[in-house]
Amino acid sequence: MNAARIVGIALFALAGSHCFAQAGSAPHAPLQVPAKSLPVPTDVSVGMQEIIAAPLRPGWNDLWKTGEEWRKAANIAAAKTIETLPAMRERLHVTVKPSVVDGVRVFVVTPDVISPEHRDKLLLHVHGGCYELSPGEAGTPEAIMMAGLGHFKVISVDYRMPPEAYFPGALDDAMTVYKSVLKTSEPKNVAVFGTSAGGALVLEMMLRAKQLGLKMPAAIAPGTPMSDVTKTGDSFYTNEMVDNVLVSRDGFCDAATKVYAHGHDLKDPLLSPVYGDMHGFPPAILTTGTRDLLLSNTVRVHRKLRQAGVEAQLEVYEGQSHAQYSRDDRLPETREAFGEITAFFDKHLGQ
Amino acid sequence: MNAARIVGIALFALAGSHCFAQAGSAPHAPLQVPAKSLPVPTDVSVGMQEIIAAPLRPGWNDLWKTGEEWRKAANIAAAKTIETLPAMRERLHVTVKPSVVDGVRVFVVTPDVISPEHRDKLLLHVHGGCYELSPGEAGTPEAIMMAGLGHFKVISVDYRMPPEAYFPGALDDAMTVYKSVLKTSEPKNVAVFGTSAGGALVLEMMLRAKQLGLKMPAAIAPGTPMSDVTKTGDSFYTNEMVDNVLVSRDGFCDAATKVYAHGHDLKDPLLSPVYGDMHGFPPAILTTGTRDLLLSNTVRVHRKLRQAGVEAQLEVYEGQSHAQYSRDDRLPETREAFGEITAFFDKHLGQ
Repeated sequence: MNAARIVGIALFALAGSHCFAQAGSAPHAPLQVPAKSLPVPTDVSVGMQEIIAAPLRPGWNDLWKTGEEWRKAANIAAAKTIETLPAMRERLHVTVKPSVVDGVRVFVVTPDVISPEHRDKLLLHVHGGCYELSPGEAGTPEAIMMAGLGHFKVISVDYRMPPEAYFPGALDDAMTVYKSVLKTSEPKNVAVFGTSAGGALVLEMMLRAKQLGLKMPAAIAPGTPMSDVTKTGDSFYTNEMVDNVLVSRDGFCDAATKVYAHGHDLKDPLLSPVYGDMHGFPPAILTTGTRDLLLSNTVRVHRKLRQAGVEAQLEVYEGQSHAQYSRDDRLPETREAFGEITAFFDKHLGQ
Repeated sequence: MNAARIVGIALFALAGSHCFAQAGSAPHAPLQVPAKSLPVPTDVSVGMQEIIAAPLRPGWNDLWKTGEEWRKAANIAAAKTIETLPAMRERLHVTVKPSVVDGVRVFVVTPDVISPEHRDKLLLHVHGGCYELSPGEAGTPEAIMMAGLGHFKVISVDYRMPPEAYFPGALDDAMTVYKSVLKTSEPKNVAVFGTSAGGALVLEMMLRAKQLGLKMPAAIAPGTPMSDVTKTGDSFYTNEMVDNVLVSRDGFCDAATKVYAHGHDLKDPLLSPVYGDMHGFPPAILTTGTRDLLLSNTVRVHRKLRQAGVEAQLEVYEGQSHAQYSRDDRLPETREAFGEITAFFDKHLGQ
């Protein structure tokens, strides 16, 4: 046994003897990780294996530079999504109706059966898509899943996106609907949820509500939130080219967000809510996956919430890339994720 | 905008249209991930940056084949650890006394100040080290942190390790002490905690306690548990050569565990507790990091617990490799992790 080996084992076993970095010391060298081959995990459902096995999203490095270009791309993609919605609504026994609330477009998503304990409850949904994708009905799949699997009435905000409006247009629209909801529902009966940009918007709404002195909802569910759009967060590196949805911190989602930000400081908590003050936030459930490019964005929000004394529950799903827990309502992992969110809402709503 | 790009965006926006794998279909191709360079994250404390910046543990691929070789390596490493303990005990105002409980060696770890609400509480600690490392006093650092930071009295089990005893010797010793503790403490006043192999032992103890019809403790804290030693779990691949502590699924920890298992089936839930039935487990708090080779081992246990209806709380720390939350008691991340565990125990003990 040579000395290096002994030191190695000592390092593993050692605790409490670490030296702090000296002020002015050189920046640390990066860790060089060799190329690797990742098998599709077998400890997830067959359907989830298919999703994990999908190639890197084609067009992950499309870096459109204008709201007009993004809207064109978004509309084409939305048409494909919308084709899938009738079967999904039928499967989940949900009705979707377009409406307008104080000038903001919404979809009212109603399950055929609302649980008795949910009849006075209302969920507000803000969809994802990097502040650019999933316009119109294409933004409703997650709301349909929540309504159908959780048996809640949901209002999904079809907020304005570029080129119709830039920052803070999406947030303004979500706030308009939130304020309207508070006129007819008690805050204790309201929860707000969304994924990715929608998860960030949920957090941004809470920061804005604090600024405006509005009451908080009973609970929030920010799913894998785009909580830091400055590319800070270790999983932007560790999960690069591993996450088959977002793929890279320099990919389409970053480009889309910059177009939405329209020159605004990306570190503003209303764009990167991890930098916001989360004291006074309502109980929160956060969802992510081990391969998620935004794993760090999610766990950092979890820690910020906990540091602020907020009840916050973290759910991390095996092998999943960004937002894959809401990819297919038929998968057990999807049922599990929405089951957790429903249980969390049931625990906190109406109290 | 070409067709591939449009399809790409559609895939991202799409939900609910996924096809399930057909029975008999070919296995999925692995994902090829190019070599990459990981900067040390800047969104953690300066002290944690130092720990994350450390090179891969020298000797990570030491694959000793006998209990005797492991013991020799363990003793040398232990001597180094033990040198650091007096200063740590002094810093944390903790006294450590060796004792024997029904033939099993233990250390009784007592803080100078026990919180009034903790005076009738008792924590049982099972140390980590791949079932081979940290014999004797070298197994006490985590117990000292818990006692000093949480102001609890702790009994740390110095369970037999190869070549003194092989599977299930460690578990047997931990159970002997647990049974003894139940003679003088009410189960509602007892919690059990440990990290890595210690985290696995905590889970194995609960499985064994169920088999024996023993009462459960009030809470458990399995930190980054070695819950699956069959190398199943996606982060064995995604975090290979990223985690600078365990480094590889084929490294020293795997070799050590096989020597302990001594030919026993590695999929036995008493070696790979993720395969055990977790119904009836006490409330659990689990801790891991985004770079942890056992990230998947941890989140899979979290999900198994939740599926079994157990209250289970998951904490994932930014940028940390295996068990780095307990590396240095002076770091804010360490204080935070032990603070979470203390708060969890305070919530559940004595109820």
